[in-house]
Amino acid sequence: MPPRVGDKIDVLDHGFVRLDAAEATDLSVVNGARVSFLQMKDELDQKDEGLIRFLIREKHASPFEHNLLRFHIRCPIAVAREWMRHRWSSFNEHSLRYSQAIDEFYIPDVSQVRTQTGKPGSYKFESMDEPVANEVRELMAEQYRSAWKAYEDMLQRGVARELARFVLPVGLYTEFYWSVNARALMNFVSLRNAETAMWEIGRYGEAVEEFFSACMPSTHKAFLEFGRVAP
Amino acid sequence: MPPRVGDKIDVLDHGFVRLDAAEATDLSVVNGARVSFLQMKDELDQKDEGLIRFLIREKHASPFEHNLLRFHIRCPIAVAREWMRHRWSSFNEHSLRYSQAIDEFYIPDVSQVRTQTGKPGSYKFESMDEPVANEVRELMAEQYRSAWKAYEDMLQRGVARELARFVLPVGLYTEFYWSVNARALMNFVSLRNAETAMWEIGRYGEAVEEFFSACMPSTHKAFLEFGRVAP
Amino acid sequence: MPPRVGDKIDVLDHGFVRLDAAEATDLSVVNGARVSFLQMKDELDQKDEGLIRFLIREKHASPFEHNLLRFHIRCPIAVAREWMRHRWSSFNEHSLRYSQAIDEFYIPDVSQVRTQTGKPGSYKFESMDEPVANEVRELMAEQYRSAWKAYEDMLQRGVARELARFVLPVGLYTEFYWSVNARALMNFVSLRNAETAMWEIGRYGEAVEEFFSACMPSTHKAFLEFGRVAP
Amino acid sequence: MPPRVGDKIDVLDHGFVRLDAAEATDLSVVNGARVSFLQMKDELDQKDEGLIRFLIREKHASPFEHNLLRFHIRCPIAVAREWMRHRWSSFNEHSLRYSQAIDEFYIPDVSQVRTQTGKPGSYKFESMDEPVANEVRELMAEQYRSAWKAYEDMLQRGVARELARFVLPVGLYTEFYWSVNARALMNFVSLRNAETAMWEIGRYGEAVEEFFSACMPSTHKAFLEFGRVAP
Repeated sequence: MPPRVGDKIDVLDHGFVRLDAAEATDLSVVNGARVSFLQMKDELDQKDEGLIRFLIREKHASPFEHNLLRFHIRCPIAVAREWMRHRWSSFNEHSLRYSQAIDEFYIPDVSQVRTQTGKPGSYKFESMDEPVANEVRELMAEQYRSAWKAYEDMLQRGVARELARFVLPVGLYTEFYWSVNARALMNFVSLRNAETAMWEIGRYGEAVEEFFSACMPSTHKAFLEFGRVAP
Repeated sequence: MPPRVGDKIDVLDHGFVRLDAAEATDLSVVNGARVSFLQMKDELDQKDEGLIRFLIREKHASPFEHNLLRFHIRCPIAVAREWMRHRWSSFNEHSLRYSQAIDEFYIPDVSQVRTQTGKPGSYKFESMDEPVANEVRELMAEQYRSAWKAYEDMLQRGVARELARFVLPVGLYTEFYWSVNARALMNFVSLRNAETAMWEIGRYGEAVEEFFSACMPSTHKAFLEFGRVAP
Repeated sequence: MPPRVGDKIDVLDHGFVRLDAAEATDLSVVNGARVSFLQMKDELDQKDEGLIRFLIREKHASPFEHNLLRFHIRCPIAVAREWMRHRWSSFNEHSLRYSQAIDEFYIPDVSQVRTQTGKPGSYKFESMDEPVANEVRELMAEQYRSAWKAYEDMLQRGVARELARFVLPVGLYTEFYWSVNARALMNFVSLRNAETAMWEIGRYGEAVEEFFSACMPSTHKAFLEFGRVAP
Repeated sequence: MPPRVGDKIDVLDHGFVRLDAAEATDLSVVNGARVSFLQMKDELDQKDEGLIRFLIREKHASPFEHNLLRFHIRCPIAVAREWMRHRWSSFNEHSLRYSQAIDEFYIPDVSQVRTQTGKPGSYKFESMDEPVANEVRELMAEQYRSAWKAYEDMLQRGVARELARFVLPVGLYTEFYWSVNARALMNFVSLRNAETAMWEIGRYGEAVEEFFSACMPSTHKAFLEFGRVAP
């Protein structure tokens, strides 16, 4: 069964993507295009899939903007930093000035402890041997514990939250709301659920795409057909 | 009874504002703000009105972006031109390249045939005497008829629609879809449903504000209280 | 000699594109990309053309945003309406509320009086016979004269400028300032200096592209090489 | 002497704001407004200061967009995260996927080791006693050293840069290019060079404002006069 509003897809060790609200249908795309002819509809019919394919193929992007998906996300700061570079969308995030951090940090699965070779745009990654991988994971865990301890120490001494947080690592989990339309979402997915993307944000891209595909199946189908390029 | 999704408010002689879809609640604002503290809610309660007032007063604007209102608009081109300068929103419009114009033009009510004195930002407008006003209205009607005739003549001779339309006046009605969040909507309303705005676009601003107020009553109330300034 | 800041390219019968200011170099692109490696430069060298080609090909778009071209444009309202749909840029336009219209209207050359067949996205246009074309041009001229006369009549009776202008046709010339970065400019040019675009806006797209090419020759070259698709 | 293009203002212990390029003058504002009347100028005169004041006061914001300031910034990640929420501008940043981190971390001056009391929007901060402050600074330094060591250990074992960086704290320095127009810059400064802002980003806001004031003195003067509110 496809995911729906309210559903949560778990991502990484402590993260998730939850669809908080959606006003996002294939019909909104069709009507966004058909207003050009003043021939809007109340229901989708057979031929409309062809229209959506035409719009994607010819890069008529504006009809894909008349909708909204609102997500609640939990991910490491390093992932959130890439995410928030997407400017045609809206964000509100957990504030480490207003409240205390949550004690959760990202540690990759054994299979994701990886080496990197090659050049930007065509890096190659390979899993490390399990014993080494486990040492790396322990090293990360230790570093996280030490950072958390320093953070708590400072808070206990009365240091301002906004200052104490400077020692917290970008592996710390954060949460945010993200509101986006299908056009900007396809752009996000094309860049982030891609081979060249950081593996960790890729898993979020995948989850976002799953919700998108459930809300707007014909649009998603056309997006796939024409190479996952945002119109 | 307040207007709802699907309702249409008539504006000017042949125009309207219809709310085509809305995912826009006061709760979305409250949760957009409360994610800072990781204390989101399922339902609005008494204290939340205070939070919304705080956000408007202190110009914390981002929590007002997690929502969507989609409108179907019919207005004269001169009004649409001002409208489409609002960039943080989405538009698709009836195309005079793709299809024929509709034969409707704006003629002001007698009371709106007006003179203009003063300076930009503080113009004063006054209704003209009824007989003069009626002459002006007849002059406009005549000009519209003549433009339409020239347009149809050209189409009949086989002239391309996109070329024939150059003679059509900005009093011609057009239609478009407009998708917008509450933050950008408040900006629109603060500028266009204002004394300094052109009277005609003001009537559209009024209708948009009515729908907004019906969807997000607490947000609208705070918007009014703090001088109708967008946060 | 390539055009430069201050130069004006004439477009259509009464229009132009003038480059009012530019802070736009290929070096700004290169440094925008090289900040990723903290290896910015003071001067462009041989290898940088390769980097720019890579960025265009791989659709790394953000390095193309660190620059500005400011244009002063004169074009018919029908052209300006398409232009101002480009939201990632800045506009200020001649106001028919604040001042009187200028008495100039677009009449196509004989060769541009055209018929239209086919479907949206693949229209075919053909020039009309010269005698018919001249009749059409006279018809347009007549209609413009009549609109101008009605406009002036209303102004003389004291009708507010913002109201009298409703009879003015979209063939009227307007002027505006347009500030844009190379990324948004390439998007504009890819859509508007294209076969599928309205011929009239195409001529403006051409002029804009000429200035762009003069300011950022390596970027323009790569843009051409990879199919005139904006990154 | 006011700062100019090429100048660098040092900020915090290892940061800076450098103005990399500017096409930003008071004249660009004046002409952006005067195009409404088709009365552009080549030089600023006495009366134009009044016009700029009028535009700020009446919140006519668009004339402030026809310009560009391009900055090269070095700041802690925690500061960059707030900065990059400003969407109407352009960023390219040092990549920890593409290259290694730089070994510099933010440690506050003794006087900036502070406590925090009160509520969001009206926090009060107070310097801690010097001995405690120094303990806190040593605690931060130690934590930074330990994070750096873990990072280097992982790199030496061959762990991918993009993965090893998860242990790096948000006190790490990063660098980026930021391109912005005066309208968005005033918004940034009004929010970030403010009492309610985090002290550290405030210092950057101050430096940005200094460059802005040097480029566009009349605009800056009006911005101050009307309460440092962006138009």
